[in-house]
Amino acid sequence: MDLSKTRGLPAWPHCPSLGMWASEAHSGRFSLPPSISRHPAMVNGGPHPRSEGSSSGGESSKESSRCSTPSPDRERHERLREKIRRRIESGDKWFSLEFFPPRTAEGAANLIAMFDRMGAGSPLFIDVTWHPAGDPGSDKETSSMMIASTALNYCGLETILHMTCCHQNQEEITGHLHRAKRLGLKNILALRGDPTGDQWEENKGAFNYAADLVRHIRSEFGDYFDICVAGYPKGHPEAGSFETDLKYLKEKVSAGADFVITQLFFEADTFFHFVKACSKIGITCPILPGIFPLQSYQSLRHLVKLSKLEVPQKIKDVIEPIKDNDAAIRNYGIELAVNLCQELLASGLAPGLHFYTLNRETATVEVLKRLGLWTVDPRRRLPWAVSAHPKRREEDVRPIFWASRPKSYIYRTQEWDEFPNGRWGNSSSPAFGELKDYYLFYLKSKSPRAELLKMWGEELTSEESVFEVFAHYLSGEPNQSGVRVTCLPWNDEPLAAETSLMKEELLRVNRQGILTINSQPNVNGRPSSDPVVGWGPSGGYVFQKAYLEFFTSRETVEALLQVLKKYELRVNYHIVDVKGENITNAPELQPNAVTWGIFPGREIIQPTVVDPVSFMFWKDEAFALWIEQWGKLYEEESPSRMIIQYIHDNYFLVNLVDNEFPLDNCLWQVVEDTFDLLSRPTPE
Amino acid sequence: MDLSKTRGLPAWPHCPSLGMWASEAHSGRFSLPPSISRHPAMVNGGPHPRSEGSSSGGESSKESSRCSTPSPDRERHERLREKIRRRIESGDKWFSLEFFPPRTAEGAANLIAMFDRMGAGSPLFIDVTWHPAGDPGSDKETSSMMIASTALNYCGLETILHMTCCHQNQEEITGHLHRAKRLGLKNILALRGDPTGDQWEENKGAFNYAADLVRHIRSEFGDYFDICVAGYPKGHPEAGSFETDLKYLKEKVSAGADFVITQLFFEADTFFHFVKACSKIGITCPILPGIFPLQSYQSLRHLVKLSKLEVPQKIKDVIEPIKDNDAAIRNYGIELAVNLCQELLASGLAPGLHFYTLNRETATVEVLKRLGLWTVDPRRRLPWAVSAHPKRREEDVRPIFWASRPKSYIYRTQEWDEFPNGRWGNSSSPAFGELKDYYLFYLKSKSPRAELLKMWGEELTSEESVFEVFAHYLSGEPNQSGVRVTCLPWNDEPLAAETSLMKEELLRVNRQGILTINSQPNVNGRPSSDPVVGWGPSGGYVFQKAYLEFFTSRETVEALLQVLKKYELRVNYHIVDVKGENITNAPELQPNAVTWGIFPGREIIQPTVVDPVSFMFWKDEAFALWIEQWGKLYEEESPSRMIIQYIHDNYFLVNLVDNEFPLDNCLWQVVEDTFDLLSRPTPE
Repeated sequence: MDLSKTRGLPAWPHCPSLGMWASEAHSGRFSLPPSISRHPAMVNGGPHPRSEGSSSGGESSKESSRCSTPSPDRERHERLREKIRRRIESGDKWFSLEFFPPRTAEGAANLIAMFDRMGAGSPLFIDVTWHPAGDPGSDKETSSMMIASTALNYCGLETILHMTCCHQNQEEITGHLHRAKRLGLKNILALRGDPTGDQWEENKGAFNYAADLVRHIRSEFGDYFDICVAGYPKGHPEAGSFETDLKYLKEKVSAGADFVITQLFFEADTFFHFVKACSKIGITCPILPGIFPLQSYQSLRHLVKLSKLEVPQKIKDVIEPIKDNDAAIRNYGIELAVNLCQELLASGLAPGLHFYTLNRETATVEVLKRLGLWTVDPRRRLPWAVSAHPKRREEDVRPIFWASRPKSYIYRTQEWDEFPNGRWGNSSSPAFGELKDYYLFYLKSKSPRAELLKMWGEELTSEESVFEVFAHYLSGEPNQSGVRVTCLPWNDEPLAAETSLMKEELLRVNRQGILTINSQPNVNGRPSSDPVVGWGPSGGYVFQKAYLEFFTSRETVEALLQVLKKYELRVNYHIVDVKGENITNAPELQPNAVTWGIFPGREIIQPTVVDPVSFMFWKDEAFALWIEQWGKLYEEESPSRMIIQYIHDNYFLVNLVDNEFPLDNCLWQVVEDTFDLLSRPTPE
Repeated sequence: MDLSKTRGLPAWPHCPSLGMWASEAHSGRFSLPPSISRHPAMVNGGPHPRSEGSSSGGESSKESSRCSTPSPDRERHERLREKIRRRIESGDKWFSLEFFPPRTAEGAANLIAMFDRMGAGSPLFIDVTWHPAGDPGSDKETSSMMIASTALNYCGLETILHMTCCHQNQEEITGHLHRAKRLGLKNILALRGDPTGDQWEENKGAFNYAADLVRHIRSEFGDYFDICVAGYPKGHPEAGSFETDLKYLKEKVSAGADFVITQLFFEADTFFHFVKACSKIGITCPILPGIFPLQSYQSLRHLVKLSKLEVPQKIKDVIEPIKDNDAAIRNYGIELAVNLCQELLASGLAPGLHFYTLNRETATVEVLKRLGLWTVDPRRRLPWAVSAHPKRREEDVRPIFWASRPKSYIYRTQEWDEFPNGRWGNSSSPAFGELKDYYLFYLKSKSPRAELLKMWGEELTSEESVFEVFAHYLSGEPNQSGVRVTCLPWNDEPLAAETSLMKEELLRVNRQGILTINSQPNVNGRPSSDPVVGWGPSGGYVFQKAYLEFFTSRETVEALLQVLKKYELRVNYHIVDVKGENITNAPELQPNAVTWGIFPGREIIQPTVVDPVSFMFWKDEAFALWIEQWGKLYEEESPSRMIIQYIHDNYFLVNLVDNEFPLDNCLWQVVEDTFDLLSRPTPE
């Protein structure tokens, strides 16, 4: 065989596939299905409703009912290639984002935060490159595998994991693929990878080409994975000719790839020419153009060196004079990318746009905003952050306790085989994962210790100084050190929009030692599109019972219990200390639904419950956060540390539900009554 | 062994047990549990909330949450002996009712109707006697087994099946018990049964005494069944002495019986003496007095002869002079029973009252009403009639289609292993039992053919004459023959209370050929105690989407489909003909919840859904009822029969859901628009 010689190629953005075997017929996965009409056919106004199956009178006819409106969250159940197909059918353009794995743990935490921010713009998927030097298949927090898994599981993003095959034996690759499958990953971008030396040599008994990897995935995993491959609009530099490279691409697609993402290019015509050439030789799957928003002169030079791409003269002409002006380069880069994208979209040949972000968000987000593709959908599918793991597809109920710590909840339930759907149920022993230090990695505060100390106090002098920290978090006002408190151990984000609805009340009670960590107002049938409390498909109505969760002292709990007698039939409570001392008026195993929604043509959804059993697991986590995130900022034996330790050891965690959702929330009155009782002189 | 000689004893009310073996220690199942306080203990006003389990800080504490308010439908999950125990603890008196199996199919249908009527008064349980001559364990519709099963499964009554053991080998008895278990029966009243001849002879290798049967049940079925045995307040006539008989009773209880029901007696002191004697020899389980409300002179004489009981002279003195005046006897009997019951209840020795109804309801109901024990609870646990089969304990969702035919639904789903709970789900193939003629037995109209013909027309002349039948059912006005239409093939009962809310609208549309068979108004958060639309535990709120289901002609369907385009986003519809031709705008497998409730401290309950898949099974049943119940009243080939057949063959079954439950029901407007469109001249 006449194999092209290769030299050191960049791992990024894509590694080439140089398959040379004869092409097989592609299965045509993207052929359009028979179109679905939204209305029954009425021929000539005549009485001929569309028949979709019939049965004889006496028999039951299972097959004869048929859907003509899309299911409200159909995408949730679709694999990536189906999502792509449906977008192509509907003509809705999309974008996707490529990231590379970070080198450090801190870099990982930052990248995950970026996933959350960039995920908000509704990418169709993201992809994570395979970094052979970084132990890519390991469970290091910086590995390609773990970063992709985090994007999928914790950030809820449809994710493609890159994978290269050279220098790895079949077992290693199969192992990686099994691992990816276990983690819930369903999409692979199959690449050859870099040769180590100057010379590319075929490695017997191993995979030498991306097409080998595609074939291997299909033969070992059948249709489980969606497979993407790389395309080179100008031909791969090693392929000899554009035509030869096209044959390699066809080989990869014929081996079972579902779609193609291209290497970056500078001019729209390059892409058009490529797509037409692909079509000519029978590559019919979707081809996504890879877009690189130029961000600095340095990165362009680096890129050109690695990819052997030629920068068009007219771009060079603009850049050279401004090469030392980063801002000017970036602005030019954005404009260039916007123009290129507009041309691509207008042509009808690009179904979507794939962005090489280089882990930087500014330029890409700016381009997307200018294109009108950055769509922050204020609607939430559910009131909490969903995971994209296939096992969790049907999950639609969670305990409310983890509302501000969804990643922790996902982590602690990752070993579950099934997730509650429809109803939480009377699960008497949900197997929550243990609380261990290491698991806190992905949940680490984004703020470094020094910043936390400024927010939460370099030195605490009393329980009241802790109350003040809570109050400052709620008020948004700067504290004594002139610093805003933007997070608490239980809330790494600013206040939720709906919490702001109750800001005044929260502020007042926190100042008096009711240290709130979770709350929601009651809602009696607001439209599901409501910008503050809405969630779920459109046309529905959402409801909530008022909820309040807080730490407070034993003395306050005493008074509270007296007050709660008056509210016995209306308010359910759970009051527990760190040792598990537990006081409640609620049934032992029966959850209380506190958020629910009614939607057209659907069953009821009740995404959050107050579950008495889970609460005992949550209280361990909630109490641990006092020490792990706050107490440990201070020296052992220091007064500040001892104050936090005192609170941890002596306070109670309380939750209250006002069952009367159509009436005014009575929980503030409960707390006021408690304060009144506390302020009364004790009878002798 | 010195066995008492016996002669022909009645199967009814109880057969004696003459066990003679040494007693074993009773397991004491009815010992009281530690009492549950509703409020946390507050010692000296001090801060000592009740601790119910604790765990070290780092561990999750599964056991530490505890219930202090009763679960809203705790009784649903309790076995009979637990229900009895809890009533004894709370001091709530109850009653139970005994019936015997009928001789004829017609008698069976009447008895089932009586179960429904008498079940409304809230008996704690009913029991069905074992009728050895009637093939009691068979699946004949009149067998003891089937009658008990029907009471349990179709009438939702806690049921005890009597069982005798003499003249049957062990295999037969075990077979009966397995059968009872399969049918969901969980309670057995264990009796010896009648000897066939004059002489009672011990039968080797078989069971000779009730205690043998009790032991056998416990040894073969462990704790599965609750077991009741018979007690004789005056001593069994064959037992030699009162004391000897007591020993036999102790033997039965020690063998594993859970409680005792006594033979009838005439004076309260008889019972008091018996209970005290029982207590003295260590019979500690509950003992229920058997009450016989005297209904005629004849029945008293018969009873006395069979039971060898002596009627007190003062009763004889009253009766003899009025023995030919049935009404006077009955009134006296009622008064006698009321006085006896009051004395029993006042003593504190009778935890409840067991009535020998002799399958007659008037006297027993009158006694219960006078005692204040007949409590018709207007609240429904769920909007539909529940079954008491243990498999169905968790069932709380059903398709709305069978709303007026709950027995049919229970029948057609009896083979299911699990029942939907919380959510109907995307079940693509619920295995509904086939529609067969015989299954209609328990659903047979209570009205004979002649009556049905008077209601539905001796002779139909047109489709319009069918419309008129529907209209008369709704209006309650007499028809041309002066007869009120009190049922339709799809509704064997008068209009539901909530249907009456829409009577005017229903009447108008039925007259124009929209033949409604099921409907509900929309409800936007009414209290669960609402007398018309309320259901479920108190303190909750119930909701409904408006629903309308009807048969109508192809021509009307055509117009309706035009009109529905305007309501596309609001109204979900399913339109199907007998052959399964199906038109819908709803998702294929997704049910639409149309009734739901929100309750304190609970998850959401959504008891009825419009499920597209079940609808295809329901339509087979709904269409079949035209022919089976209506068409077949007429001669084959008769014009009346042909009209029904025409409707069956050509009409569509339509259901409509208005998803906008907070707004005014739009379904009437949909129908009005349809009529408007129909009345417009067709454009040339």
